[in-house]
Amino acid sequence: MIKIALIGSGNLAQHLIRTFTELALSNSNIELIQVFSRDKKKLSTLLDSEKIISNFQDLKKADLYLIAVSDDAIATVSSQLPFTDRLVVHTSGAASLLSLDAKNRRGVFYPLQSFSKDKIVDFKSVPICLESEKSADFVVLNSVANAISNSVFAIDSEQRKALHVAAVFVNNFTNHLYQLANDICTEHQVPFETLIPLIQETAHKITTLNPEQAQTGPAKRNDKSTIEAHESFLTNKNQSTIYKLLTQSIQNHGKKL
Amino acid sequence: MIKIALIGSGNLAQHLIRTFTELALSNSNIELIQVFSRDKKKLSTLLDSEKIISNFQDLKKADLYLIAVSDDAIATVSSQLPFTDRLVVHTSGAASLLSLDAKNRRGVFYPLQSFSKDKIVDFKSVPICLESEKSADFVVLNSVANAISNSVFAIDSEQRKALHVAAVFVNNFTNHLYQLANDICTEHQVPFETLIPLIQETAHKITTLNPEQAQTGPAKRNDKSTIEAHESFLTNKNQSTIYKLLTQSIQNHGKKL
Repeated sequence: MIKIALIGSGNLAQHLIRTFTELALSNSNIELIQVFSRDKKKLSTLLDSEKIISNFQDLKKADLYLIAVSDDAIATVSSQLPFTDRLVVHTSGAASLLSLDAKNRRGVFYPLQSFSKDKIVDFKSVPICLESEKSADFVVLNSVANAISNSVFAIDSEQRKALHVAAVFVNNFTNHLYQLANDICTEHQVPFETLIPLIQETAHKITTLNPEQAQTGPAKRNDKSTIEAHESFLTNKNQSTIYKLLTQSIQNHGKKL
Repeated sequence: MIKIALIGSGNLAQHLIRTFTELALSNSNIELIQVFSRDKKKLSTLLDSEKIISNFQDLKKADLYLIAVSDDAIATVSSQLPFTDRLVVHTSGAASLLSLDAKNRRGVFYPLQSFSKDKIVDFKSVPICLESEKSADFVVLNSVANAISNSVFAIDSEQRKALHVAAVFVNNFTNHLYQLANDICTEHQVPFETLIPLIQETAHKITTLNPEQAQTGPAKRNDKSTIEAHESFLTNKNQSTIYKLLTQSIQNHGKKL
């Protein structure tokens, strides 16, 4: 039996509670024994109240302490734990393993997905990136990760940094491009919904082609007259600066500069 | 019965041939009577050979001539048609209705999707943007568009220009962000596949939230320490310029500058 205590009550923490609770129904050897939340009420619909604690001193012995709090709070929370030499991991893409207090055996359990508040996530398809200081601890993390996901990776802190930056490009920045497209549509009274199937197809293509093969458009085929027409169409300075920079980046990609 | 003649043999032309051929099997009142292709062999697996012509003089009387050629060729092709006062439309997002020769009744039939060579497209979910000079012609275009798609819009040339630029943002530029993420992963020996579920979720979110609501990440929450960590991690100048510009654009979005 692997006993887990979870610290945190935010989006990710709630998704993990749901997932571990479901897992318990299927005779798993993994058990979520406790969750720490400053505000006990926040989790009252998700968990038996006796499992919710709001004082670190009440933490029971567990095989794995999962810290799912904001990056800024990882150091403080991990230093406040009233025990040593146990397996304590954080769940952040951006924070180093070293941000955890060294009094415990450190590791990382990073689910690489964007979690929304009210949207149920099927963890089976969420890649989980694992790291640990000690190899025996990796075995524990690996068992837990494989119990909830079909996609588990050993990723060290430097690799995780790269992944986190890359995730900003494909998630935050991509969504911002949707936002700019939405602005352009609104300015010209065209429904943004018209673009949804194209957005879906763009994301879908990448499952069968690599990004180089999937690249199309005026920049890629160096269609100067269309590029000029677009540039003169965009009167918003920010939109036009981004258009030029990304067009240039597509055209220079793969070239030695 | 609406008789269609198609001019072109590229990606879009081939997808349209497949779609109209399937439609004919379901007792539709729409018939693809001819396809013009300079190279007859190119379409030999898609169509009866007697329907393929390579000389404009062989074009029969039709209710609708669909020009699916590259933007550059629209003016020339439309001027070479050996008849006048018939309904002739192009299928381009970027070209104006006025790029067609004025000797015929002009219109636009623009399927807003990215068409790949070997990937079957279900036209039912492809938005089709229609425009015509005469309202009687719009009725014909509308019948044809509704026969193949569930999503038909009246979009004038100015609106279509906006849509086309917006499509570059959500398709070409988004795919380029995937490419940059792929580069970052490769440089740091992380499998790009790790990011695929996040890419899918980003595109999926937009079907239930608007881009403003869906925006997350360090730029949105003004998490300066993560932004600085990312900026110092990116040693490639192009990646770092794009990171800074898009971060700034997210932070300034919605503000009066």
